Amino acid sequence: LPRFQHLFPAYIIDLDGTVYLGNRLLPTARETINKLRRLERKIVFITNEASRTRAVIARNLTEMGIPTQPEEIINSSMVTVAYLQEHHPKAVLYVIGEPSLSLELLEAGFRISQDPQHIGVVVISSDHGFNYDKLKIAFDAIHCGASTIATNADRTCPLVDGGEEPDALPIIAAIETSSGHPLDVLVGKPSCFMAEAALRVSGVPANQCLLVGDNPETDIRMGKQAGMVTALVATGIRTKNKEAMLASQPDYQINQLDDLIPDFIE
Amino acid sequence: LPRFQHLFPAYIIDLDGTVYLGNRLLPTARETINKLRRLERKIVFITNEASRTRAVIARNLTEMGIPTQPEEIINSSMVTVAYLQEHHPKAVLYVIGEPSLSLELLEAGFRISQDPQHIGVVVISSDHGFNYDKLKIAFDAIHCGASTIATNADRTCPLVDGGEEPDALPIIAAIETSSGHPLDVLVGKPSCFMAEAALRVSGVPANQCLLVGDNPETDIRMGKQAGMVTALVATGIRTKNKEAMLASQPDYQINQLDDLIPDFIE
Repeated sequence: LPRFQHLFPAYIIDLDGTVYLGNRLLPTARETINKLRRLERKIVFITNEASRTRAVIARNLTEMGIPTQPEEIINSSMVTVAYLQEHHPKAVLYVIGEPSLSLELLEAGFRISQDPQHIGVVVISSDHGFNYDKLKIAFDAIHCGASTIATNADRTCPLVDGGEEPDALPIIAAIETSSGHPLDVLVGKPSCFMAEAALRVSGVPANQCLLVGDNPETDIRMGKQAGMVTALVATGIRTKNKEAMLASQPDYQINQLDDLIPDFIE
Repeated sequence: LPRFQHLFPAYIIDLDGTVYLGNRLLPTARETINKLRRLERKIVFITNEASRTRAVIARNLTEMGIPTQPEEIINSSMVTVAYLQEHHPKAVLYVIGEPSLSLELLEAGFRISQDPQHIGVVVISSDHGFNYDKLKIAFDAIHCGASTIATNADRTCPLVDGGEEPDALPIIAAIETSSGHPLDVLVGKPSCFMAEAALRVSGVPANQCLLVGDNPETDIRMGKQAGMVTALVATGIRTKNKEAMLASQPDYQINQLDDLIPDFIE
């Protein structure tokens, strides 16, 4: 496996499964990120999580010893808000997701309804409160003409104990399958919307960014599509999809984050 | 469209969307079925419904003016019980379905558990109480080695008011998508298990049976695969899947059930 012979101007780094698992930092994450910052590298964190705001995630990272501003984080709920503000500024939404996602959309000025005839856009995300009644409202709204947008399409989410739990993709699948209507827009990784938002914050062209993530299907695929250099880290997602691995070969494979630092750097 | 020039020895007739919608008989259903019986034709009702027992469905039909014995009905829960008794006689089950399905499986002697490490078979059906916690138990059980069996794989279920609601297929899709494990066994139409159970009750070879149903994806496809003659009735399911229509061309298309009776019969 090739080792890093140089530093990159910017590092776009996935969070869950790459920097931490749940509330636990992964080995060498804190030292590596703080060292890259001391070496004046731009750090942008990128996450498909839509259930916590950038401010909450930044505070959490800071408490873990990685001082971070909200502006250094790109999460899928903020990119969803931006997408909706640009393409559906007056839409009435129905939100299948954690309560904080609904709150973020309400604070951005959107109206939320449970009446299928008034719903213009169904927003789909990971949702521990997903149930049949929500499926039925989405199904009816789509039959009445609503479009669909997903914050992310992760199959599973890694857990602190090393396991996984279902994420947004099975909810998307249930809605697509019942309605016969394929998802209209995916906002989260691997989409170009997330990549573009991260590149804007990085301030450098894509080929000067190293994308670091644990998930070939989302992280590596997005990085490659956007023209970034990519590094897959062996932490995080337990069961890598072999087809996705073959389709999204990373430029580098590392065991943990300190492998990002070339050997000649103290 | 060809008209019927003769009667068949046996009629295998779908229920929901063909004989009734919810609690409402469809036009000419009662007269036609009672006339076929007076003409000494064998009638077998076949339904993917797993949320009511044969006895309950028979009583309901009888109350609607179509006197029916439980033995004249093939539903997907009884065929699921028979399949499990033959292939997994001692399995511990986890049931995603209406309460009566769990009751039927308990009465058949199966044990039910919510502990992923003890679950041998996940039984999937339509379930108005489906939620994320159930998805997670199925997901964990499959990771621990459980196999999966679905009573039916209908995309939607017709409603009395002319609408539809999500049926078992979106639940199957959520479980398959999260676990990465394709469904092991489908019991309901269009599977051979339902066709074989119906043929046993009919007492005649498949090519002497007319399969009558409103759903090309389940009814007509099963009939054709089993070698029955098939008739699609225009009642029931609102949105026919065009690909399924092309893949499962019926031998006959009728508007309502009395079109089954040849013109020369009084």
